[in-house]
Amino acid sequence: MEKRVEHIELKPEMRVDELVAAMGKSGVFSAGRVAKAVEIYREMLEAKSTVFMGVGGAMVPGGLRRILTQVINKGLVNVLVTTGANVTHDLIEAFGGYHARGEALVEDTKLRERGISRIFDVYVPQQVFELFEDRIQPMLAEITKEGARMSSDEFLRRIGSRLDDENSFVKAAAAKGVPVFCPAIADSILGLQAWLYSQEHELCIDCLRDVREAVELASNAKKPGAVLLGGGVPKNFILQSMLLAPSAFKYAIQITTDRPEHGGLSGATLEEAKSWGKIEPDAKVVNVVGDATVIFPIMVASILTKK
Amino acid sequence: MEKRVEHIELKPEMRVDELVAAMGKSGVFSAGRVAKAVEIYREMLEAKSTVFMGVGGAMVPGGLRRILTQVINKGLVNVLVTTGANVTHDLIEAFGGYHARGEALVEDTKLRERGISRIFDVYVPQQVFELFEDRIQPMLAEITKEGARMSSDEFLRRIGSRLDDENSFVKAAAAKGVPVFCPAIADSILGLQAWLYSQEHELCIDCLRDVREAVELASNAKKPGAVLLGGGVPKNFILQSMLLAPSAFKYAIQITTDRPEHGGLSGATLEEAKSWGKIEPDAKVVNVVGDATVIFPIMVASILTKK
Amino acid sequence: MEKRVEHIELKPEMRVDELVAAMGKSGVFSAGRVAKAVEIYREMLEAKSTVFMGVGGAMVPGGLRRILTQVINKGLVNVLVTTGANVTHDLIEAFGGYHARGEALVEDTKLRERGISRIFDVYVPQQVFELFEDRIQPMLAEITKEGARMSSDEFLRRIGSRLDDENSFVKAAAAKGVPVFCPAIADSILGLQAWLYSQEHELCIDCLRDVREAVELASNAKKPGAVLLGGGVPKNFILQSMLLAPSAFKYAIQITTDRPEHGGLSGATLEEAKSWGKIEPDAKVVNVVGDATVIFPIMVASILTKK
Amino acid sequence: MEKRVEHIELKPEMRVDELVAAMGKSGVFSAGRVAKAVEIYREMLEAKSTVFMGVGGAMVPGGLRRILTQVINKGLVNVLVTTGANVTHDLIEAFGGYHARGEALVEDTKLRERGISRIFDVYVPQQVFELFEDRIQPMLAEITKEGARMSSDEFLRRIGSRLDDENSFVKAAAAKGVPVFCPAIADSILGLQAWLYSQEHELCIDCLRDVREAVELASNAKKPGAVLLGGGVPKNFILQSMLLAPSAFKYAIQITTDRPEHGGLSGATLEEAKSWGKIEPDAKVVNVVGDATVIFPIMVASILTKK
Repeated sequence: MEKRVEHIELKPEMRVDELVAAMGKSGVFSAGRVAKAVEIYREMLEAKSTVFMGVGGAMVPGGLRRILTQVINKGLVNVLVTTGANVTHDLIEAFGGYHARGEALVEDTKLRERGISRIFDVYVPQQVFELFEDRIQPMLAEITKEGARMSSDEFLRRIGSRLDDENSFVKAAAAKGVPVFCPAIADSILGLQAWLYSQEHELCIDCLRDVREAVELASNAKKPGAVLLGGGVPKNFILQSMLLAPSAFKYAIQITTDRPEHGGLSGATLEEAKSWGKIEPDAKVVNVVGDATVIFPIMVASILTKK
Repeated sequence: MEKRVEHIELKPEMRVDELVAAMGKSGVFSAGRVAKAVEIYREMLEAKSTVFMGVGGAMVPGGLRRILTQVINKGLVNVLVTTGANVTHDLIEAFGGYHARGEALVEDTKLRERGISRIFDVYVPQQVFELFEDRIQPMLAEITKEGARMSSDEFLRRIGSRLDDENSFVKAAAAKGVPVFCPAIADSILGLQAWLYSQEHELCIDCLRDVREAVELASNAKKPGAVLLGGGVPKNFILQSMLLAPSAFKYAIQITTDRPEHGGLSGATLEEAKSWGKIEPDAKVVNVVGDATVIFPIMVASILTKK
Repeated sequence: MEKRVEHIELKPEMRVDELVAAMGKSGVFSAGRVAKAVEIYREMLEAKSTVFMGVGGAMVPGGLRRILTQVINKGLVNVLVTTGANVTHDLIEAFGGYHARGEALVEDTKLRERGISRIFDVYVPQQVFELFEDRIQPMLAEITKEGARMSSDEFLRRIGSRLDDENSFVKAAAAKGVPVFCPAIADSILGLQAWLYSQEHELCIDCLRDVREAVELASNAKKPGAVLLGGGVPKNFILQSMLLAPSAFKYAIQITTDRPEHGGLSGATLEEAKSWGKIEPDAKVVNVVGDATVIFPIMVASILTKK
Repeated sequence: MEKRVEHIELKPEMRVDELVAAMGKSGVFSAGRVAKAVEIYREMLEAKSTVFMGVGGAMVPGGLRRILTQVINKGLVNVLVTTGANVTHDLIEAFGGYHARGEALVEDTKLRERGISRIFDVYVPQQVFELFEDRIQPMLAEITKEGARMSSDEFLRRIGSRLDDENSFVKAAAAKGVPVFCPAIADSILGLQAWLYSQEHELCIDCLRDVREAVELASNAKKPGAVLLGGGVPKNFILQSMLLAPSAFKYAIQITTDRPEHGGLSGATLEEAKSWGKIEPDAKVVNVVGDATVIFPIMVASILTKK
């Protein structure tokens, strides 16, 4: 019959990659899927796959900012697609602002009085948004000198190349030539700032250019692979980029807490994407149900260790 | 002490609003929240609240297309924000295409061979996308005659006003003067078609104009209320529209299966939005955990019945 | 191709069964599943199926007490399996106690000081447990006169037959001859009371007798059907009763918010139960993801209305 | 203001405890909670807390069998409460049977024909249940010589002390004097076997004795702590054991995928338990949302490494 479940055995001083290897031998339930995600990611990297990474939600305020930067600097990703929230909060820290550890069970009206905005158990002090405005407005004036109409990734490349903070993933991506798409950029505080700027200056973030560039990248990709942290626009935008490309994803990893039965794409299985031709019929895929703030660090810590 | 839980009692021929009233008397767990959502929605309508409705996911292929049209025609909504998927699938039916009832547990590679794309248990035959292309391309040529640069809601108003299908929510919204925002329009098959068109013609969907119009609507809204079906960009875009407005939402209803602990906005509680000043401190709010394809029809069927 | 999705259309004064019929015509996502659950339940009743109903969680404090009683009195169930919580809270009300509507977001240490125990947003005043003790102890003395060793269903039949409250499902079941199993009865406040009694008197609730009676009922059942509200012991106990029976469930409906990927039986699909022979290969089954306090009243209100 | 979110930084050869420490510095979302769970567990062990561990679901077929054994042997637990499934599948392996790695998306009727029972993506070959019967029946004859009426933990102690397999957690617990309660033992295949035996021999597993012993253990516990893997009977039984004890839990860790809004205890927050007096008002508690097959190995691997 099939391979036996070999029970996980732990030991002191255990390394993350050793734990993942043990999970791979058990091979079942969510632990087995975490191990399979690492296996597929390793295989993608060995095959020199073009890696598209979707980063939904609020991973940056959630503590994954440096990991995104590491992933870019180590060459573990070739194309990023993310939410306006992740970009905004990366820039907030690049401009000298910060995020604080708070409480999830709290009276929000009292936080409001204290000038604190809450993201689950992250606190964002109001003044960082003022700092953000002070810093981004002159930067917008500067970058539009290179032309006032651009895709979201061109917009973010221009911003990233002007940042000083080595921990910024937007800067790292610009430095490494990794495009960062933000197809719903208007739907963020960065978007609000861009609109404020556009009231008196010419600025147009042209989403159809995003499509053009994404379709080109998808068409030229080699053995393309998708690593999807959360759902939302980043997941759909990455998958749909293959609809007009000659081939499709040969690898796909999804880490999400969302579910399929309500029909939204965020919770859809990767198998479903095969029916659309977004993922190859014989692609290696794995759906991991879980919070990416736990699962993704485990994956990357394993990958950074040589096998 | 507090009000007693009065147990739900059922009867033959029971009306939906009667069932909801009974759930309101029990008042607890999810049933109590469904009743509270109806109560808040009724109060919004009585107060002549400006109602912003967010429609995430794939509600249209999921059978809610006519309900959206009813909601628009009956004056239960003033501003819509939705995904490209909902618009695309509305247009597919408006152009004579259809969606079919399929299976969720199925071999997707076989569906692919049969030319069927799957959305959970909805089947979309490949030919409807060809039909969609045949019909949308000349329409794009026509609407750009009124100007080639526009917000997403202007884009959809122009399309909607050219449709024949009385069941189309995009048409109903155009006819009723209800703006339909789609801030991530590039992230959809309609977006892909717009890009195809833009390769040889001038077309720019300018997302910063979306922000401008949304902020204006939010600023001018009277006793504004939010009805959020699912999360994603629609939810965030509606909530953030209040960040630059003088006041904030006085009512908010959320129906979602997403959760707060991963920090993404889709799953965030409405209480959290109070810390951001998006919702008033004393606003009436309710979070209902559940699939909007079940909960929203119950709510609207109740609302359509006079109290 | 397959049947088209016919979009739900609402109307004023709409009855619950009409809404469910409309959901059945759309036929997809969770709405389609609610309609399918009603269809299967109707078919079970028409086929004079022996209906096993599992009632997990805390449905009784959650407002479903009278519906359970109605379901018993109307002959919609033949065998009940439930948690100690549901039985305890039914008896609390039968003895004159009550449950109150409270808040889910609250400081529990303050509730503790006020003598209130919380079940999500239900408040249970401490004194009802004192009342419960005062009433159950003499009742235990009385029922053990008929013999001190018994199955959990015999235990509950004896209690139920001594209750006065027409709204009690334990009483209704005893009156109608519907056995109520509570295989984990020790795991409840009723169980604690039984233990207190047993310290000075002979009392043995013999769980292996539960197995014997359940296996007999399963073996003698005609076209057996399972209606599972929530998971836990009730679900597993019902399904396992078929492991030693000659046939298996021909119908099965599950309403749960739990999920399969962690491998626990509560979240397992009904398809999985076919691999165990607990459900027939060609059985009619449906998994509905949702809170039973919303879904089950919809189902029963439909069923009570003649088709 | 509050402590800053320090972003997680990964490195090659990273140890699990180092990763958890980094998650602790970020301190937010699920990653922060995993770190807090480890911190609380360490503190429990340093304080020589009496540790009650609840093991719900099917952790043993899911690859956690040896970890449970390690946890017992290393003195990280003092009292275990578990499901019949975990005990049954531990014994299956102790008797020479095994579990296999299978697929979650599979036709269950075909598995049935092949004699395979499925637990999500674990396959259980039918013959291991025959082996189980062959081995457990004579063992039941043997253990009842010491008396035919017993609590579930006495029942499991007698079985465990007769096992040869060093990897069995039931054996390890018997050897170490850690009681293993299984309050719903009838609700399992072991329960079915016990019933088969009881048809012709005297055997009574007396659940009220479980209550007595649990209340005694709770009453005598020093700085008691609860580690709850999944919900179900194990969680409730552990928490309710404090209802009649003079004090309550001073520490509590919960790892579950279940949710509070349907009111079932499995998904209830630990805060709620404070309103019942099951957990001390100032206890250190953490709710981690996630699959214990991933989270618990991370926690224990950290704990096994000296700080």
